[in-house]
Amino acid sequence: MKIKLQQAADVLQQADDILVLSHKSPDGDTLGSASALCTALQRLGKHVRFACSDPIVPKYENLFAQLKPEEFEPKFIVAVDIADTQLLGEETEQFKDSIDLAIDHHMSHKEYAKMSYVDGTAASTTQIIYELFCMMGVSIDKQIANCLYTGLCTDTGCFRYSNTSATTLRIAASLMDAGADAAEINRIMFDTKSRARLNVERLAMESIAFYENGRFDIMEITEEMMTQSGATEGDIEGLAALPRQVEGVLIAATLREKKTGGYKISVRATPPYDASAICAQFGGGGHKGAAGCVIEDEKENVKKKLAEAVSGYFRSQGI
Amino acid sequence: MKIKLQQAADVLQQADDILVLSHKSPDGDTLGSASALCTALQRLGKHVRFACSDPIVPKYENLFAQLKPEEFEPKFIVAVDIADTQLLGEETEQFKDSIDLAIDHHMSHKEYAKMSYVDGTAASTTQIIYELFCMMGVSIDKQIANCLYTGLCTDTGCFRYSNTSATTLRIAASLMDAGADAAEINRIMFDTKSRARLNVERLAMESIAFYENGRFDIMEITEEMMTQSGATEGDIEGLAALPRQVEGVLIAATLREKKTGGYKISVRATPPYDASAICAQFGGGGHKGAAGCVIEDEKENVKKKLAEAVSGYFRSQGI
Repeated sequence: MKIKLQQAADVLQQADDILVLSHKSPDGDTLGSASALCTALQRLGKHVRFACSDPIVPKYENLFAQLKPEEFEPKFIVAVDIADTQLLGEETEQFKDSIDLAIDHHMSHKEYAKMSYVDGTAASTTQIIYELFCMMGVSIDKQIANCLYTGLCTDTGCFRYSNTSATTLRIAASLMDAGADAAEINRIMFDTKSRARLNVERLAMESIAFYENGRFDIMEITEEMMTQSGATEGDIEGLAALPRQVEGVLIAATLREKKTGGYKISVRATPPYDASAICAQFGGGGHKGAAGCVIEDEKENVKKKLAEAVSGYFRSQGI
Repeated sequence: MKIKLQQAADVLQQADDILVLSHKSPDGDTLGSASALCTALQRLGKHVRFACSDPIVPKYENLFAQLKPEEFEPKFIVAVDIADTQLLGEETEQFKDSIDLAIDHHMSHKEYAKMSYVDGTAASTTQIIYELFCMMGVSIDKQIANCLYTGLCTDTGCFRYSNTSATTLRIAASLMDAGADAAEINRIMFDTKSRARLNVERLAMESIAFYENGRFDIMEITEEMMTQSGATEGDIEGLAALPRQVEGVLIAATLREKKTGGYKISVRATPPYDASAICAQFGGGGHKGAAGCVIEDEKENVKKKLAEAVSGYFRSQGI
């Protein structure tokens, strides 16, 4: 059942023994939302605990610094930033049919909770949690401000992407007023890369090949590059954005070699072009700006198929 | 003479035949400030023209799209974002002793104008121009909002750096309300790199060498790399930030080979460490976060000298 944010505020005020869930491979928004909610609800005197199928990487550990560990059988389960119960992962999928409240900002949200509040116009789920806290009269201290700011900045590429609204910036300003360590959080989230990332990025950059007079390019991330650089999946997060950044490129594809053979393809497009139109041809999908698909073939064939698809797409667009 | 912003508003209201100057090698803030000021003053019916010693690179051309070209002998000269008349450059240094009003946000501002308004706490000069426009009752339309937003976002690394205040974010929000194409400007300023930049970045990354158990690193930008990649000075803007981003690095140095021999060194430090303490040992200076110096020696000697200086500094800090 879809509910209003004020109703979500009301049910949370009445709930106790609350379990808050983040999605698997947790990012700054799902963790910022969960940690803010857990910390705020504990301060209201409630019993609260947190669960996630995957471990929290060190850069996000501080978010949970003021959360007291508690053990109890949950009576109320909240899912934050989880668009689909498939994203719960192994450890928490046991809760998939008993989630009481879902708070999310994904347009693609598949209703699974007893009550859902979804605002697809919010830049991040923490933006919604901020508004929820205002309704609940939660006092936003430095720790909670840091949690909410982390979700805001990570989901907007530090206020760079088109999901950033004037409201997003004003909430970020209020969080700074409340003591958020914005510059320090930004440094950790945006100005830090592992040595493995540095190396895999360099190797991937070297692989970039241009097509269609420089309007389409393909970057490779092979298993050999991963081994050579010592990179893990976490190290290549966001790397698919790189080939689209090259001047003149309208569509970019990144080929990620699968361990089992074949390639996972990430396509990015400069407005007004449509990445999902390319991926749809290979049974994939996504948004205009970013889409994905899988092609089970040898590398050179994969590149040929993509180049042909993009060439056809460009012709259909009259370019 | 130092004046209040209201006085700057008053003198601008009375002035006419106004020449607005930007600093040489113009960036988004000096051009955003100048274009906003010129456009707004022309809309008030004044005669206004703009001058800069260096050409405007294509990504900033749109800022001046609504400025009507005019010819006149200036009666009032305004310098924006210019900390020192040495930054005027060849074409405009003729005006250095006749500048009526300077508006700037550099702490290091050397007073040279008849009247100066300097606010070192402002993230950008466009932040001051915004406040000036509010005092002058200038209506901020889409074009002026785009000019002001460009200065705000470029000088703060898209609201990433510690100069970003809650006020900066609220002004950015107001500019979005006024129609600023924030996402599009951010894409052009932050998500676009030339092929030459891509190549020189890759070569420079390859050169990174680590010292002091990975707490200090050195990156090279040689003349050979510049030639091989086809990069110009504009293509290596901001590249010195890269070696500091590597996980575990507390101090990073970038060596830029000078055409005449010797090296220009850019040092970056992670808080609380001090880049200027390193550069001071070689007759240079700067801020805690970023400093510079010149060392006239062979490359290997330069690297050795820097590694020794950083080692001594680390010992003095007890690490």
